[in-house]
Amino acid sequence: MIELESYLQGQWVRGSGRATTLVNPATEAPIATSCTEGIDFAAALEHARNTGGPALRAMNFAARAEMLRSLSRSIHSHRDELIGLAIENGGNTRSDAKFDIDGASLTLAAYADIATELAKEAPSGAVLVDGAGFQLARSPRLFGTHLYVPREGVAVHINAFNFPAWGLAEKAAVALCAGVPVVSKPASSTALVAHRLVKLFVEEKLVPEGALSFIAGSPGNLLDHLRGQDVLAFTGAGTTGAALRAGRAVREHSVRVNVEADSLNAAVLGPDVADDSEVMNLFLTDVVRDMTQKTGQKCTAIRRIYVPANKVATVLERLGERLGAIKVGDPSRDDVGMGPLATAQQLADVRAGITKLLTETSGGRIVLGSTNPIAGGDGGAGKGFFISPVLLHVASPKPDDAVHTHEVFGPVATVMPYASEGADHGAAAVVRWVAAGGGGLVSSVYSDDKSFVRAVVLGIAPYHGRVTIGSSKIATQAIPPGTVLAQLVHGGPGRAGGGEELGGRRGLSFYLQRVALQGDRALLELISGQREATS
Amino acid sequence: MIELESYLQGQWVRGSGRATTLVNPATEAPIATSCTEGIDFAAALEHARNTGGPALRAMNFAARAEMLRSLSRSIHSHRDELIGLAIENGGNTRSDAKFDIDGASLTLAAYADIATELAKEAPSGAVLVDGAGFQLARSPRLFGTHLYVPREGVAVHINAFNFPAWGLAEKAAVALCAGVPVVSKPASSTALVAHRLVKLFVEEKLVPEGALSFIAGSPGNLLDHLRGQDVLAFTGAGTTGAALRAGRAVREHSVRVNVEADSLNAAVLGPDVADDSEVMNLFLTDVVRDMTQKTGQKCTAIRRIYVPANKVATVLERLGERLGAIKVGDPSRDDVGMGPLATAQQLADVRAGITKLLTETSGGRIVLGSTNPIAGGDGGAGKGFFISPVLLHVASPKPDDAVHTHEVFGPVATVMPYASEGADHGAAAVVRWVAAGGGGLVSSVYSDDKSFVRAVVLGIAPYHGRVTIGSSKIATQAIPPGTVLAQLVHGGPGRAGGGEELGGRRGLSFYLQRVALQGDRALLELISGQREATS
Repeated sequence: MIELESYLQGQWVRGSGRATTLVNPATEAPIATSCTEGIDFAAALEHARNTGGPALRAMNFAARAEMLRSLSRSIHSHRDELIGLAIENGGNTRSDAKFDIDGASLTLAAYADIATELAKEAPSGAVLVDGAGFQLARSPRLFGTHLYVPREGVAVHINAFNFPAWGLAEKAAVALCAGVPVVSKPASSTALVAHRLVKLFVEEKLVPEGALSFIAGSPGNLLDHLRGQDVLAFTGAGTTGAALRAGRAVREHSVRVNVEADSLNAAVLGPDVADDSEVMNLFLTDVVRDMTQKTGQKCTAIRRIYVPANKVATVLERLGERLGAIKVGDPSRDDVGMGPLATAQQLADVRAGITKLLTETSGGRIVLGSTNPIAGGDGGAGKGFFISPVLLHVASPKPDDAVHTHEVFGPVATVMPYASEGADHGAAAVVRWVAAGGGGLVSSVYSDDKSFVRAVVLGIAPYHGRVTIGSSKIATQAIPPGTVLAQLVHGGPGRAGGGEELGGRRGLSFYLQRVALQGDRALLELISGQREATS
Repeated sequence: MIELESYLQGQWVRGSGRATTLVNPATEAPIATSCTEGIDFAAALEHARNTGGPALRAMNFAARAEMLRSLSRSIHSHRDELIGLAIENGGNTRSDAKFDIDGASLTLAAYADIATELAKEAPSGAVLVDGAGFQLARSPRLFGTHLYVPREGVAVHINAFNFPAWGLAEKAAVALCAGVPVVSKPASSTALVAHRLVKLFVEEKLVPEGALSFIAGSPGNLLDHLRGQDVLAFTGAGTTGAALRAGRAVREHSVRVNVEADSLNAAVLGPDVADDSEVMNLFLTDVVRDMTQKTGQKCTAIRRIYVPANKVATVLERLGERLGAIKVGDPSRDDVGMGPLATAQQLADVRAGITKLLTETSGGRIVLGSTNPIAGGDGGAGKGFFISPVLLHVASPKPDDAVHTHEVFGPVATVMPYASEGADHGAAAVVRWVAAGGGGLVSSVYSDDKSFVRAVVLGIAPYHGRVTIGSSKIATQAIPPGTVLAQLVHGGPGRAGGGEELGGRRGLSFYLQRVALQGDRALLELISGQREATS
């Protein structure tokens, strides 16, 4: 069995003590172990700050672009091997695995492009100018300007189990582009793919020493050693995010924290959408994909489906047909559409979650599927953490019902009606229902009714990091809501953790310190690199 | 004696129970009491969210500009009365009081100007467009864009005792400009000026109902009722800031928090500055002003003074002369240059702080002043929380010494040497010393040596929210480091709390939700207001 090591202070190390075992979630066969007991995390952070930081800051944006592109290419050139590992350790179908691995590679490539753009604006790489400078007083000499400079700390990235490749890459891409060294910790249970990525990067010497460290297993007391120039980015359960935010070192040193947490993403079907329209097809396709891709273990998956009351029966029937046709089982098989959940704990949580939705939601019922696991998959007899897609229907929900407040992290979604009568075609009602989720990463609206779309989108906007609109003009080419793009921000307020990642160069600001300068205009332009030194 | 009431849910209310007494810090005479026991803070927040929020969001930016300008004018037209209250309750000299009150009025006017600019870009006021939209895929129809929309919560502002007028205004200006209602809580001990401001605004009906609430006294359980659309901005001690950040509701609902806390702001004298130069004069003037203005009770005051080793004697002598000439006493008298500290507690803290600097700093000594209070002021006999300016000298500091880690919030600063030999004229050494403060709001560099200035400014930039440069070209017109400008960001990493306020329109983003939209380009432009509806 493989022993996964951590990469810290420029070497592969392992702890001594009780190890965590990684399994194949389709067979429950052990694959690997990891252990970090006894590792000196304080020294690991210092190494990243003192060796990785200076090395990255010494690279200009052109050099960082090249580095990011090399990471992207490395992933792409080992795609098949990585897909195999994702199937084995993640329970991913081949398609799920590609989504994770290609997403990692594409996000690194996108930030390589951003670094290339930045190289034109800021050849030195040390400083980014934030907006035009301006006169501060009557004299045109006294000027103010804002710069962004890299923080001199380390970025600790704690990732979720569902995207071992993309999770590592989407956070690391932004930090490395900004010039800040990374310590990346994937979820222990599915660390195989992330571990392989870092092995590749290290073997191929694609990043300077100290720029990318890696923890296989528990982070121990790592977070106690964070300091004021460090940042912490976390993706995972809201309760963990809340605990991290209250950590002693985080509080005492005002460590910047970004959290991506629970999200009850909604899909809204407009009252104008005809049963056989392209928009209806897009809506059904998006819901089914986002319920079942990665076995519903996606922070952007659709959990709540709001439909005009008179369309509920049709939508339930059509979703039921499409979901029922998906074969659940061994994800390495080509005819299988959905693999197992990632761990035994996930399976237990999903089953308990469905029960919670049913018992703590007024009048919830199961339309398709059940809380029972299906060992071995559809028609199978065997092992593994399998469950079939579960479609719920709630005829008359209330705002406090669990369906609006509890995320079930699996292939589970709930159809609910809204009243589409009235001058606004139900827009205000929809906004209230969606907002009852308390803040989400992404929701989607499917409609060609412009005033309905406008009212819903602006109404739910304060509660979201992203909103997608499915309309007939783009129905055949739409990018699904569940797909996070490097150019658009990813995050959401409230329940979703209050974070913001990616968004093109917007994402860099988390890793940079914005500083205002005031003084003689010529001197400020010299400092910011907008004027050559003459002496 | 005045009983200060709180303004909540559109009415003036008082609690019942033990009251806090406000005193005149020059005479210790009681002035007013306040009490909030039994007040329903949950209902107060709901009123702000449900009445104030919609009213503000219904105002376009032009209307918000007019509102902000009316607040600015109201302060200005009651300037003399407010100055009187600041002298009485704050221990402010007339000059100190103007700094606070004119700062409040100017900041509101600056945000009125910003709202006027925004009115041109976004006539509706509902939405601000964040950057250009862009094509997401091969088809030019599928587009992405980012908008900023007002959060639908309430902004809770908890202010420090030192700036009752400016503190209220600088936070409220930004929130109201963004369209978010405010609940403002000044420090209880010096609430008189803030209370009067809100009285004026309410009597003159300058803001819509629910848009500005006010708490005189303890905020009780207010913070337990914060939710995911709310924001919390705090200025004050770092320990309190850390505790607020870890509050249950804050953590559980990912409430956005901005903290401005302790800051060991540094002033650096360059090795090139001649004894009788304008730059030397600017440096000495800034240090003396920022040590003694508001009796040193200013988060941007200069605490650490780094001087080339061969200039220490000169600087100590010159500062000693200037500081020694400042008369301490009754701040209502025109010949007095520095009033008392604001409270008995502040006096106790400052005395203990000086002792800490002396005992926990290697070789610290007092050059001017002492830890002893001077009841009644210079040569006086009487009451009041007076202390004289205290200048310290540390000949060979160490990075962990208290002088780099403990802020004494009074008229106290320490002169320390740096080694200015070597090719960089001591720039690298200065950067290390300044950075030992662990993150600050503002530091200043005085020099005409361009490469020294550039190296120091870029070196300390990651540790600051603002850096000012005093050079001969602007020596006669410089704005002191201790003056916070509405157009430049105010905040700092690490010890300084990790916050960012003001900075012109940059400050608005704290109160807005950024949301990415993806869909048909024409539809996105309709939603963002960049295209007229045609149907």
